[in-house]
Amino acid sequence: MKDYLENINKAFESKARLGIMSVLMVEDRVDFSTLKDTLQLTDGNLASHLRALEEAEYLRVEKQFVGRKPNTTYHATDAGRKAFNNHLDALEQLILNNRKDN
Amino acid sequence: MKDYLENINKAFESKARLGIMSVLMVEDRVDFSTLKDTLQLTDGNLASHLRALEEAEYLRVEKQFVGRKPNTTYHATDAGRKAFNNHLDALEQLILNNRKDN
Repeated sequence: MKDYLENINKAFESKARLGIMSVLMVEDRVDFSTLKDTLQLTDGNLASHLRALEEAEYLRVEKQFVGRKPNTTYHATDAGRKAFNNHLDALEQLILNNRKDN
Repeated sequence: MKDYLENINKAFESKARLGIMSVLMVEDRVDFSTLKDTLQLTDGNLASHLRALEEAEYLRVEKQFVGRKPNTTYHATDAGRKAFNNHLDALEQLILNNRKDN
């Protein structure tokens, strides 16, 4: 396999997951509706991508109460930040290789 | 939606398709087994990604005979080259935005 493809991480392939991780890299804690509005995803679609990233241990879910209302927030784990940065590095290599050859 | 996500093209999301298009941007015509070896994909997996890119009219399939042996080659269409370049530009924006914020 081409070197620059090796480090592309399947966990971050989709636009939705690129978006989720991009938001979580900047904001320490983000709630579901903020993510939904920012990324314009349906509830089901967003929930399924969040679950996949949680299963990969790239993000953590925190449930707490704000007053009497339950509030669920998402934040990137250290492993998630590291893996996403590696993925961005791999995409950068892919771009450089394509630009170089054309 | 964040600007830099708008132009990410779902047709190119997967590692396999990024790989296929990267190869076809450089080589005018590539046969199935060269793609398979380069990208280390199974026959079924590669065939299904090639079919999807063909349906999007991002690549064209040509069947001809080399001597008496049938030979199938793949090459990127102009629309495919343009769309892939736009996708790379969008990824570049995503990377720049992430690097800027961190």
